[in-house]
Amino acid sequence: MAKLIKKRSKKAGLPPGTLVHIGEKRAGEIKITLIDYDEVNFQEREIKMVEECFPFREKPTITWINVEGVHRVEVVGRLGHCFGLHPLVLEDILNTDQRPKMEIYGDYIYIVLKMLYGGINHPIEGEQVSLILGSNFVVSFQEGKEGDVFNPLRERIRSGKGLIRKMGSDHLAYSLIDTIVDNYFLILENLGEKIEILEEELMVHPTTETLQEIQRFKNEMIFLRRVVWPLREVVSGLGRKESSLIKETTEIYLRDVYDHTIQVMDTIEVYREMLSGMLDIYLSSVSNRLNSVMKVLTIIATIFMPLTFIAGIYGMNFKYMPELEWRWGYPAVWLIVVIIGILMLIYFKRKKWL
Amino acid sequence: MAKLIKKRSKKAGLPPGTLVHIGEKRAGEIKITLIDYDEVNFQEREIKMVEECFPFREKPTITWINVEGVHRVEVVGRLGHCFGLHPLVLEDILNTDQRPKMEIYGDYIYIVLKMLYGGINHPIEGEQVSLILGSNFVVSFQEGKEGDVFNPLRERIRSGKGLIRKMGSDHLAYSLIDTIVDNYFLILENLGEKIEILEEELMVHPTTETLQEIQRFKNEMIFLRRVVWPLREVVSGLGRKESSLIKETTEIYLRDVYDHTIQVMDTIEVYREMLSGMLDIYLSSVSNRLNSVMKVLTIIATIFMPLTFIAGIYGMNFKYMPELEWRWGYPAVWLIVVIIGILMLIYFKRKKWL
Amino acid sequence: MAKLIKKRSKKAGLPPGTLVHIGEKRAGEIKITLIDYDEVNFQEREIKMVEECFPFREKPTITWINVEGVHRVEVVGRLGHCFGLHPLVLEDILNTDQRPKMEIYGDYIYIVLKMLYGGINHPIEGEQVSLILGSNFVVSFQEGKEGDVFNPLRERIRSGKGLIRKMGSDHLAYSLIDTIVDNYFLILENLGEKIEILEEELMVHPTTETLQEIQRFKNEMIFLRRVVWPLREVVSGLGRKESSLIKETTEIYLRDVYDHTIQVMDTIEVYREMLSGMLDIYLSSVSNRLNSVMKVLTIIATIFMPLTFIAGIYGMNFKYMPELEWRWGYPAVWLIVVIIGILMLIYFKRKKWL
Amino acid sequence: MAKLIKKRSKKAGLPPGTLVHIGEKRAGEIKITLIDYDEVNFQEREIKMVEECFPFREKPTITWINVEGVHRVEVVGRLGHCFGLHPLVLEDILNTDQRPKMEIYGDYIYIVLKMLYGGINHPIEGEQVSLILGSNFVVSFQEGKEGDVFNPLRERIRSGKGLIRKMGSDHLAYSLIDTIVDNYFLILENLGEKIEILEEELMVHPTTETLQEIQRFKNEMIFLRRVVWPLREVVSGLGRKESSLIKETTEIYLRDVYDHTIQVMDTIEVYREMLSGMLDIYLSSVSNRLNSVMKVLTIIATIFMPLTFIAGIYGMNFKYMPELEWRWGYPAVWLIVVIIGILMLIYFKRKKWL
Amino acid sequence: MAKLIKKRSKKAGLPPGTLVHIGEKRAGEIKITLIDYDEVNFQEREIKMVEECFPFREKPTITWINVEGVHRVEVVGRLGHCFGLHPLVLEDILNTDQRPKMEIYGDYIYIVLKMLYGGINHPIEGEQVSLILGSNFVVSFQEGKEGDVFNPLRERIRSGKGLIRKMGSDHLAYSLIDTIVDNYFLILENLGEKIEILEEELMVHPTTETLQEIQRFKNEMIFLRRVVWPLREVVSGLGRKESSLIKETTEIYLRDVYDHTIQVMDTIEVYREMLSGMLDIYLSSVSNRLNSVMKVLTIIATIFMPLTFIAGIYGMNFKYMPELEWRWGYPAVWLIVVIIGILMLIYFKRKKWL
Repeated sequence: MAKLIKKRSKKAGLPPGTLVHIGEKRAGEIKITLIDYDEVNFQEREIKMVEECFPFREKPTITWINVEGVHRVEVVGRLGHCFGLHPLVLEDILNTDQRPKMEIYGDYIYIVLKMLYGGINHPIEGEQVSLILGSNFVVSFQEGKEGDVFNPLRERIRSGKGLIRKMGSDHLAYSLIDTIVDNYFLILENLGEKIEILEEELMVHPTTETLQEIQRFKNEMIFLRRVVWPLREVVSGLGRKESSLIKETTEIYLRDVYDHTIQVMDTIEVYREMLSGMLDIYLSSVSNRLNSVMKVLTIIATIFMPLTFIAGIYGMNFKYMPELEWRWGYPAVWLIVVIIGILMLIYFKRKKWL
Repeated sequence: MAKLIKKRSKKAGLPPGTLVHIGEKRAGEIKITLIDYDEVNFQEREIKMVEECFPFREKPTITWINVEGVHRVEVVGRLGHCFGLHPLVLEDILNTDQRPKMEIYGDYIYIVLKMLYGGINHPIEGEQVSLILGSNFVVSFQEGKEGDVFNPLRERIRSGKGLIRKMGSDHLAYSLIDTIVDNYFLILENLGEKIEILEEELMVHPTTETLQEIQRFKNEMIFLRRVVWPLREVVSGLGRKESSLIKETTEIYLRDVYDHTIQVMDTIEVYREMLSGMLDIYLSSVSNRLNSVMKVLTIIATIFMPLTFIAGIYGMNFKYMPELEWRWGYPAVWLIVVIIGILMLIYFKRKKWL
Repeated sequence: MAKLIKKRSKKAGLPPGTLVHIGEKRAGEIKITLIDYDEVNFQEREIKMVEECFPFREKPTITWINVEGVHRVEVVGRLGHCFGLHPLVLEDILNTDQRPKMEIYGDYIYIVLKMLYGGINHPIEGEQVSLILGSNFVVSFQEGKEGDVFNPLRERIRSGKGLIRKMGSDHLAYSLIDTIVDNYFLILENLGEKIEILEEELMVHPTTETLQEIQRFKNEMIFLRRVVWPLREVVSGLGRKESSLIKETTEIYLRDVYDHTIQVMDTIEVYREMLSGMLDIYLSSVSNRLNSVMKVLTIIATIFMPLTFIAGIYGMNFKYMPELEWRWGYPAVWLIVVIIGILMLIYFKRKKWL
Repeated sequence: MAKLIKKRSKKAGLPPGTLVHIGEKRAGEIKITLIDYDEVNFQEREIKMVEECFPFREKPTITWINVEGVHRVEVVGRLGHCFGLHPLVLEDILNTDQRPKMEIYGDYIYIVLKMLYGGINHPIEGEQVSLILGSNFVVSFQEGKEGDVFNPLRERIRSGKGLIRKMGSDHLAYSLIDTIVDNYFLILENLGEKIEILEEELMVHPTTETLQEIQRFKNEMIFLRRVVWPLREVVSGLGRKESSLIKETTEIYLRDVYDHTIQVMDTIEVYREMLSGMLDIYLSSVSNRLNSVMKVLTIIATIFMPLTFIAGIYGMNFKYMPELEWRWGYPAVWLIVVIIGILMLIYFKRKKWL
Repeated sequence: MAKLIKKRSKKAGLPPGTLVHIGEKRAGEIKITLIDYDEVNFQEREIKMVEECFPFREKPTITWINVEGVHRVEVVGRLGHCFGLHPLVLEDILNTDQRPKMEIYGDYIYIVLKMLYGGINHPIEGEQVSLILGSNFVVSFQEGKEGDVFNPLRERIRSGKGLIRKMGSDHLAYSLIDTIVDNYFLILENLGEKIEILEEELMVHPTTETLQEIQRFKNEMIFLRRVVWPLREVVSGLGRKESSLIKETTEIYLRDVYDHTIQVMDTIEVYREMLSGMLDIYLSSVSNRLNSVMKVLTIIATIFMPLTFIAGIYGMNFKYMPELEWRWGYPAVWLIVVIIGILMLIYFKRKKWL
């Protein structure tokens, strides 16, 4: 549950715009990398001092500054100051418990979304990514927990393949969002496989662990939906042309991301319904097993109780019990016992209990 | 579940517009057929080289190019290039995991929908159909898994019966969509019959398999709803006159398809509710059977436990037990046993357990 | 279920506008009656040849042509041709599996709704009624399965009572719709009474049949909702003044029908919720009975098992068992047995199991 | 259920506007009272002949005519004629099975709502109140089953306290609606207390009656929601300034009533959710009791079955059973019995069954 | 439940605008504090006589009057009179059972919201806060049950840190709302921790108390949702620029509060779904325990019933029972008993019951 709710309360009572880092405590430095390019030029370097970024603000080339780690409040603060960000934006960048959203400010757009991690054997985890899209720059802030999914994009910029070097900063921002959303499909496929395995397990041999697994996946779905649902609005908002920062050529690409987002939502809903169905099957399989346990008990009891009664009768010590003296009394009892047993078995066969 | 989620992740990280086939691996050639007609002329031929299609682009006659199989990326690419399709459209054609959608580009409309297959004894399967509607041509792309449902339409064009030869390319696109949607009714009828059989089975003799069948049908419904729900928007979008490619005469026909789509949705919802009801009945029939099992056990135990106790009493070896000496002791015990048994039976009769 | 889904598939592949009858196979003739009236004149006759209707198209008087039976495709076709109906409208009239809808064509409005039948002891059945409202005529098509509910309306026209003879064709169409909707209340009252009886049965002595009845009524509700829900849009659409065929004086009457439709919907929802509640009660009554069965078993077993054990102890054949020699051993055992029995009963009384 | 559905069917087939009383059959006279006031003058009298009301129509003072009982069709008819009401309005006044609604006619507004009754120990019952709001009069029709809730309002008018004598007829209509809605809070508080009692009962000692009570309250909620939900639209419709009969000063008051309606709805929803929760608790308490019953049975059986078996062994009559001859055989058996018993108890203690 | 519904009924029948305190009865004085500031000046004092506030109405500085306790009707009345509040507003301030809402009056805005309390070990409780926002003043009314959460804000004003002293009264109102909403996160975190503890408890050892706790938290969520849901509309309403009292600089801050409100709603929904999931787990764990109880019973019965029967057979007193004379009869019986026991255990092992 830790991932659903973060300790946001430490901000209660502080004035708005106060920069406080909310999220997992982390030590270590922040890593800042800068990529600057246009159709012909390209440079990439790691930044030690925030101030190195400042000249790029005015250059006409496209600059992508990637910040890994937002736990060093003053670094983020200086960067924000340089790019003229509103204090509330800085506050939101530092608060890693944001809902995906998009806000248009005069000369930049602020976008928050969630990058997802989670291999076959790990629970899904999210990391907040904030994007500042300006006319000729994009600043991206990550929490820096586990690296990122942007390497193929970096490679594409380096190599100059595809359109990216020919397009503006809005295309760069689009590419970042697209990369993050594409990664969701990977996460969903992994989940899908695990759910499929669970489904088979459910059919063959359901245990209490199966139930807990189903419940855990349902919680994962709640988490995912919470991450993806508002993203839809973000992407459709970007495509709605409310800011001149998004050029028309990019809109068609945003429509594509929008489709993907819908598809991700769709898949999440399908998984949710499947998990509900699996819960139903689990519950009824528990009832079914109870049924079969009780049948065994009933069959045994129904056969042996009358027989034991008969044996009890002839164990009585009455003085005058003529059967006891009979030559064939004992075999006769065995005969009765066998006949009763067989009749009972036929009866249960008829009732389809056997 | 395979049909719900496809391996889309192999695209993660690639630049947008990269042509990658997503879907079932298939070998073999792509089959391209071309039908060209106007009110008087008609020709139909199979295309070996994509380039044979190109002249038809400029001809005023209506041209329908049908591509079966989209796994040969370069063939689709060349066709797309010829008809001036946007790279993102080509990407979507190749990605057979699309949601039904409609996108209006300057001089063509791109439509995606799902053709459905599935006989009485097979699960329902979908195949993606992409349509490119231009002013005088329609290009249709199928996955080519199992043939298609367009033969009656082809026959109608060949014979020149009905309106189709007199109308434009928008009517041809409409006819393709209409044919696909009409086929949904067939699929639903088959499903309906199977659900009806299942319902009877449920009343007569519900087993764990019945439950699994119900669940399987519920999953089929999730799949169907996913296919049909967005179709509604597609068809209503086409009818909304946003593109000059759709003429006014065609709108009334699109309204008709729209009605059919609603009807299909409706039917799916009805089936879903029926299946939920069947699940309820199944669960309560399991409880009922448990009840009847327990009643048998309780009746047997309640009758024979007191009797066995009585037999046990007179099996004790006390020296001074006056009853044991009585002449009629043994018959008296039998009398008591029979009386107790009858009283119990009357009691259970009263309680309506028998 | 037959009534939920009809064999629509036989149309798959046919060109749009092809006239095919979809619905129950029926033999026999179609019965056509014609009523022609204005404030002073009135005539009513049965039509043998469709062509007899044609002159009335031009007459300024209001003409109501009622067609019972739509299985004779060519008769409907000729009528449609005379009144200038679009082929898709004719197709819809013949297809008795339509959803209620309303379509405005240039000089006529096409309305589809469902007439309902079903006495106290029959399941509810629907029959499709199509209305063509022109400036001075109304043509109504019924399936003709069981007569219709229009007789009081006919009587009103004949007698000239009320407003109807003074108003136009739109008022006649309104009156037909109103009659059909009013009839829904009758159906609902019958259903309501049956549900009430079922509820009492459920309290007194619930059986598996009760459950199946509840489920059957739930299915009836699904059917009814499917019939009534789209009707709301039809009626509100008519009242929205989109066609000059509906005069302003009629709007206030349509608002009244609209209110009735809402009321019918409301009632259906109430019944649905009540049936859900009844299902809950049924399920918990099954659990309760299981509980009471188990209590009987447990009480019997808990009392007699210790007693039988005691009897068993003194049935042992050890040489040295001092109790067996005691003078009061046997009565002592009986005393112990009675005391244990009484203590058990007190214990169960305390636990409120008795 | 009687209160949910009334015998509306007797109207089926009658022409619209036919005056038929639908509701509980009642005998006796209709009671009509008239209050006429402006800022200085005030008169109040009981009306014997409907015609006495007519002069007040033209007087500039505000006139409130209250009609208790709508079962005398001709009286309502004459009143309606005098105030120029549309036949459909009269029909609706007489039909006590209306949904709350508001209809604007040229020079008057027709409002229907439900007055609620129901003490601590009675089920909630509704009575239809129809209001006709004209420029200088309000006519209110009640069913007259149990008196009304308007007495405090009458007193306020008589005494001239508050604003009411200074405001127009729209304020009077508002005051009537406000009084009715305020009364809902009283009803809800009573219900709330009863639900609270039920909740406690559920925790302490749930019985089948508890379940039936929960279900009964759920049905009450269905009834209440049906009454209140459409009221929201009525009040917001009145406040939307669509008629000049509602002055601007009254709008702020209507907003207040609107808030109250929302609050009532809210409370009903809260109760519904609480009742659902109680149902869950009930069902699981039934399961829990079954569990504890079964534990008792299992403990008893598990302890005494092995013991009885041991006693049975030494009750066998084999000639060569060395234990039977042992001096300490019998005490040894008792020792074994006690040890087994104690071990079993420890085992059940460990399993937390005791 | 007390907190869900308050005794509002005592107002039924009173004229609108009558000042009646609705809420918990409280004795003692009302505490009024006044803070008056602009960028340079600052004063803070406690008010004894309401009249002391009046001069500040006209001063250009920003004045914040905080009233703790609304149970002294006449004090609130005099304050309201001074600031020209509408009687309905005063009525709403005194009625502590309001739903959060916002109403724009000519020269002031009236806002109602709920401050929440509740430590780790107390249920959540709400206290109504009413804000009157004028052009240069804010009057806040609290119920004064437990102090408030405004102290950090007061400190900020005193110290002059942050923007607050430079901004207008709208920023002050925003700060109050923001403080209240920030506090919700604290409440939710506490709740979240408690739910987490409950979830663990559920896995380890679920009891009836666990169920009641789950139900209690569900009710808390109903309460919270009721408080937060309408708040969304309040905040978005304030940001919609409908009044000139809200300056443009404040809108960006309101957007921030709006985001927080959405986040709170989101979290509540997540908790609700988790609690539903926990209920499912609880119910199935009850079934599972029943299953395991029944297995123990069945295993014991299935093993010992046949054995007891065998012992019973050789306890019979027939004269001619050859086995009884055998030298190895007794050991043979023991052998058979052990073999049967072992076979049964193997059988249950196979069935995975052990």
